[in-house]
Amino acid sequence: MDIDLSGESDWTDMEQFRAPLARPFVSADPDPERFRVRYYTDPLGNLAARAWFGPHCEGPPGHAHGGSVAAVLDEAMGGNCWVQGHAVLAGTLTIKYRRPLPLGSVVTVRTAVDRVEGRKVFAVGRLLDASGAVVAEGEGTFIVMREELQGTLDAEARKAGRTFGSAY
Amino acid sequence: MDIDLSGESDWTDMEQFRAPLARPFVSADPDPERFRVRYYTDPLGNLAARAWFGPHCEGPPGHAHGGSVAAVLDEAMGGNCWVQGHAVLAGTLTIKYRRPLPLGSVVTVRTAVDRVEGRKVFAVGRLLDASGAVVAEGEGTFIVMREELQGTLDAEARKAGRTFGSAY
Repeated sequence: MDIDLSGESDWTDMEQFRAPLARPFVSADPDPERFRVRYYTDPLGNLAARAWFGPHCEGPPGHAHGGSVAAVLDEAMGGNCWVQGHAVLAGTLTIKYRRPLPLGSVVTVRTAVDRVEGRKVFAVGRLLDASGAVVAEGEGTFIVMREELQGTLDAEARKAGRTFGSAY
Repeated sequence: MDIDLSGESDWTDMEQFRAPLARPFVSADPDPERFRVRYYTDPLGNLAARAWFGPHCEGPPGHAHGGSVAAVLDEAMGGNCWVQGHAVLAGTLTIKYRRPLPLGSVVTVRTAVDRVEGRKVFAVGRLLDASGAVVAEGEGTFIVMREELQGTLDAEARKAGRTFGSAY
């Protein structure tokens, strides 16, 4: 199926960063009937995306599972923290669902970092449908990893022939 | 792979309700390397589950994606609202991540309804590892659907040869 995930004219394609950024659960999902996500940066340097929700994202009949919406926002908000130079894991995630999302929709994802306090990075995100209506809003507190944990995860990534923390 | 999803001795198997409860994004996921979830009810009648997080749930190297943890808690908390007789969709979901979850783990999911105010059902949930340590805590506000929306979703489910709202 041909799905148009092209970005806005003032977005920069993040394809060169795809491998380290992409995670199997969302953006590197091997199942072509679930998510398809393409990342960009907007003119402010924040991560943006086009994302398609396929039939295997189903929750309510014909519509995206609340968990699938949460997963896309979590990955985009957390990914943006990394793009902004913060090596984080999710601490707290809040999703407000504004309207059901029909399967087969391509949505726009926007993210920003609201503020940084010590090791806490406060991130925000939005998922918008093709008409610009807000489907869901996200807020996340992402925590900068302690060196020891990051070292452990870096080693796990290298073992699998991938990169994790060193890509940005 | 043989994965033990058997429940506690005082849990009741929900397999007979599996088809209407299971959603393709989590508990009816066709990818055997992602989730495997088995639902029960505990002695209070609340939904409980054993859930396995496979390699395709990866977020941080070797560990479950924050979105995958959110999805399992969302489905279990929302599913429990249905089991308690409330035909809901997710309104707001908050997940607090307490520790990274290694892939290949079987976790225990517990849910409860905290209170009901008008059309809002306040649900809670927890994800516990094999030692009983809390991996993540969830809180959700689930909204009882208006009749028109439920009718639309019921019709979509029937079209696909499934049931939605009428199963409990």
